[in-house]
Amino acid sequence: MEEDLSFWAWGRTDRYPTRAMRQGLHAQIAAFLGVQPRPEREPPPVDTLDLPAPRIEPPPALAGITSTDRADRARHTYGRSYPDLVRGLAGDFRQAPDLILRPESEDQVAQVLAWAAGPGVAVIPFGGGTSVVGGVEYDGATRPGVVSLDMTRMDRVLEVRPTSLLARIQAGAKGPRLEAQLAEHGLTLRHYPQSFEFSTLGGWIATRAGGHFATVYTHIDDLVASCRMITPQGPWESARLPGSGAGPSPDRLVLGSEGTLGVITEAWMRVFPRPTFRGRASIRFEDWRDAVEATRAIAQARHFPSNCRLLDKREAMLNMVPANAGHVLLLGFESADAPVGHALDRCIQIAKDHGGTLLDGPHLREGEGRDGGAGDRWREAFLQAPYLQSALVTMGVMVDTFETAIPWDGFEALHDDVVRSVRAALKEHCGTGLLTCRFTHVYPDGPAPYYTFLGPVAEGRELQSWRAVKAAASDALVRHGATITHHHAVGRVHRPWYDQQRPELFAEGLRAVKRTLDPAGVLNPGVLIEER
Amino acid sequence: MEEDLSFWAWGRTDRYPTRAMRQGLHAQIAAFLGVQPRPEREPPPVDTLDLPAPRIEPPPALAGITSTDRADRARHTYGRSYPDLVRGLAGDFRQAPDLILRPESEDQVAQVLAWAAGPGVAVIPFGGGTSVVGGVEYDGATRPGVVSLDMTRMDRVLEVRPTSLLARIQAGAKGPRLEAQLAEHGLTLRHYPQSFEFSTLGGWIATRAGGHFATVYTHIDDLVASCRMITPQGPWESARLPGSGAGPSPDRLVLGSEGTLGVITEAWMRVFPRPTFRGRASIRFEDWRDAVEATRAIAQARHFPSNCRLLDKREAMLNMVPANAGHVLLLGFESADAPVGHALDRCIQIAKDHGGTLLDGPHLREGEGRDGGAGDRWREAFLQAPYLQSALVTMGVMVDTFETAIPWDGFEALHDDVVRSVRAALKEHCGTGLLTCRFTHVYPDGPAPYYTFLGPVAEGRELQSWRAVKAAASDALVRHGATITHHHAVGRVHRPWYDQQRPELFAEGLRAVKRTLDPAGVLNPGVLIEER
Repeated sequence: MEEDLSFWAWGRTDRYPTRAMRQGLHAQIAAFLGVQPRPEREPPPVDTLDLPAPRIEPPPALAGITSTDRADRARHTYGRSYPDLVRGLAGDFRQAPDLILRPESEDQVAQVLAWAAGPGVAVIPFGGGTSVVGGVEYDGATRPGVVSLDMTRMDRVLEVRPTSLLARIQAGAKGPRLEAQLAEHGLTLRHYPQSFEFSTLGGWIATRAGGHFATVYTHIDDLVASCRMITPQGPWESARLPGSGAGPSPDRLVLGSEGTLGVITEAWMRVFPRPTFRGRASIRFEDWRDAVEATRAIAQARHFPSNCRLLDKREAMLNMVPANAGHVLLLGFESADAPVGHALDRCIQIAKDHGGTLLDGPHLREGEGRDGGAGDRWREAFLQAPYLQSALVTMGVMVDTFETAIPWDGFEALHDDVVRSVRAALKEHCGTGLLTCRFTHVYPDGPAPYYTFLGPVAEGRELQSWRAVKAAASDALVRHGATITHHHAVGRVHRPWYDQQRPELFAEGLRAVKRTLDPAGVLNPGVLIEER
Repeated sequence: MEEDLSFWAWGRTDRYPTRAMRQGLHAQIAAFLGVQPRPEREPPPVDTLDLPAPRIEPPPALAGITSTDRADRARHTYGRSYPDLVRGLAGDFRQAPDLILRPESEDQVAQVLAWAAGPGVAVIPFGGGTSVVGGVEYDGATRPGVVSLDMTRMDRVLEVRPTSLLARIQAGAKGPRLEAQLAEHGLTLRHYPQSFEFSTLGGWIATRAGGHFATVYTHIDDLVASCRMITPQGPWESARLPGSGAGPSPDRLVLGSEGTLGVITEAWMRVFPRPTFRGRASIRFEDWRDAVEATRAIAQARHFPSNCRLLDKREAMLNMVPANAGHVLLLGFESADAPVGHALDRCIQIAKDHGGTLLDGPHLREGEGRDGGAGDRWREAFLQAPYLQSALVTMGVMVDTFETAIPWDGFEALHDDVVRSVRAALKEHCGTGLLTCRFTHVYPDGPAPYYTFLGPVAEGRELQSWRAVKAAASDALVRHGATITHHHAVGRVHRPWYDQQRPELFAEGLRAVKRTLDPAGVLNPGVLIEER
């Protein structure tokens, strides 16, 4: 196992907030919420975890890639959502997978699937384990055993075609490993989800992850030129193409399949030359509606900023992004070809025309590296946030996020309803709470709003309270026709709302495809469609 | 029926080339090919066509939307590819559909499907009938009857949300009708396939049509916010969303389904404000490789031109686009927000850096309307071309197109092979011939090349010769991993090569979905997957 990864909390143990940081966090949250969080609770030692013995043994041929280490199994039990952290901190690993298998080749993946089909052992494909929607957990009570199929040993960039800006990459490559290999060729994938350090290419494809770019290339979908997966019925490989119109896209059935149809093993990805021209600015708005209208106008003007992140004043405050107690729009452009000043200037002008005032910038730069501006402060807060979430959970603070997308014409009513519903739920279950909003991605036809909520929660009532707030949020989304997820995926958490939103006949089609590719029903059972 | 549409040739009878134009064409082609085309052959009168009597009657409730008119049935027998024109000109309508049904509501579509399922009457969804891949023809010999389901009476823009730049449009709306209704709101879909005047929104979605924009929004796929279709098992409707990450995209299974899974009835489309700023230029290249490299550099610089159409010197000559006997790159930018001069200038500079010389422009304009430049001359030639094709067929000239997409790293070898293989086939079957190439769309990872071939063909050997040349072209595409179609769809013509290129397990999935949605197998049997 990877010794430096926490068995219950976000990320690396050596990056967990220090005692001093946690004290500061405690004080900050007390100020935000107006109540004192509980003193920290210590996670239990690994040898005291409630973690049953494995029920199955691997076939001899796969013994060499098998782990039954307790901490390893604990680490593969959950993703990293709030309820995952709560259960982990409580030492509840009753649904730990029996075995961790770490294939080093497609042959081994195929062997695992062939072996599992006979007895009906469930196979849960596992990348970084950073799902926030219950995408990698499975209680497996009705099964003889559960395997967590950890893909991270298949982590190489296999082939690069610089002429075509394409790279063939194994699905188990985590963000930094993938970028380091591409950097040798002067290239980059530029896909930076919050989980970048730990999540894998295969996980991004399986969950339709959202990335770096606020416009145009919003989802990993747009960067996939082809992909390959091993299904229980054999390999599935699409042609490496810049575009095609030959029947429905095979790749688009793999994208978002969440480990239910096959195990993604590699993909040809559209990569970028490293950007050398950048520009950024931040614009303050006193009025939220002005800020939204400005952002809409910018999205619809189609200058395609790489960053177009609107933070409401609470979000800015929570992330310590300078906003002078207002709402703030962070604008960024980047190019590997030419200066970006004209597009940036025009977007600043649009923002001003909608009541914005320039807070910082425009800053234009040539060359690589960071410049310490608001965008960088945002990025640091962004990557640090999940660690703080883990620490907050130890202090009895419920903290979670949810995200969506909706046409502009429906946003205001949705937002009002979300704010009203989630605040009411926080009030009822936490006594008080905070709800913040930002736009992570924007489209000409609508924004992708992202909400963070926090509130103090009574010991022993964490999961119950969280379920109530999550349901209030999700019900509001569905009431307004907003998607249950823009880029966090469906997993087990979003299933009830997903089922209401997808065309029922599409679900029927998905069931038919699942029966065809995975007749024994061993792959991530119960995700996207019900377990048979 | 629509009286002004030809029963055998492209488009409107009143737009068929005049006698003088045809004489000019005859002389021009004689000069290009170095041989005299045959004298024109007259199409047969409608009452002499080989067109069997209908084998079935509609149910009484649908009698009012049924046509059995001979010319109407002839017009619904084929698309408008070369072999379609040859068979039409020969009066061969033996596989005419028995009935034309023109539903005016989704209820009527559902009634047709319910009625057809019992006896197994085949239902072929029909939009503009402009397929060039045999997408709307069906011999129906094993069926009790064949219905052509003409959707063009469902042609309204039902709802517009200007705030979100979205419009709900019925699938039977043809290009001009759709644009006229959007224009009332100052909006436009900006999707201009060559068939624009006759083809329908539903047809574009079913076939993943390629449109106006050379970059970013290349296929209709990118403009679909949601869609609705009536399947034999009931309605399928996706949520109207700017983006989502909730499972595999339902819309992407409808896109490219070519009438095999259901009848598309309406869609929420992403529309545009009418552009008010434009810029254009044309650049000449002496050397084809320089031209390709320049186009690649421009595509990879990501300034997202709306037009980036590279014509080889033969293509420019054939379309009378000024190119001074060289290859020519037509560049265009458009915006509804701001002047486009900077991006245009930068792309011109890139082209010059790769050996190009400025032939015309840069021309910048504000306001609507055309300016008579090379782009406009191209557009006129583009819309006139299918009429000229029909006239050429009467002169014994084989003329057809094929198109593909491939990563840049594979283009040169593909192109050499295509040129060699198609010229050899033309030599063998026509004695001589002409092959031209243009790029219709470009991506950072590869171009979408589009080829036109022509050659004189012996009377009575038209179909046989065409099949040989088409096979030579298609085999070359498959040899190099280039897609069998970038935006012309699969239909019946491309099936053998499509079958080699799609993942076989995807085909299995598609079969399973088809059995689920269309258990009687009545919808466009044999397209995409084999008839059961």
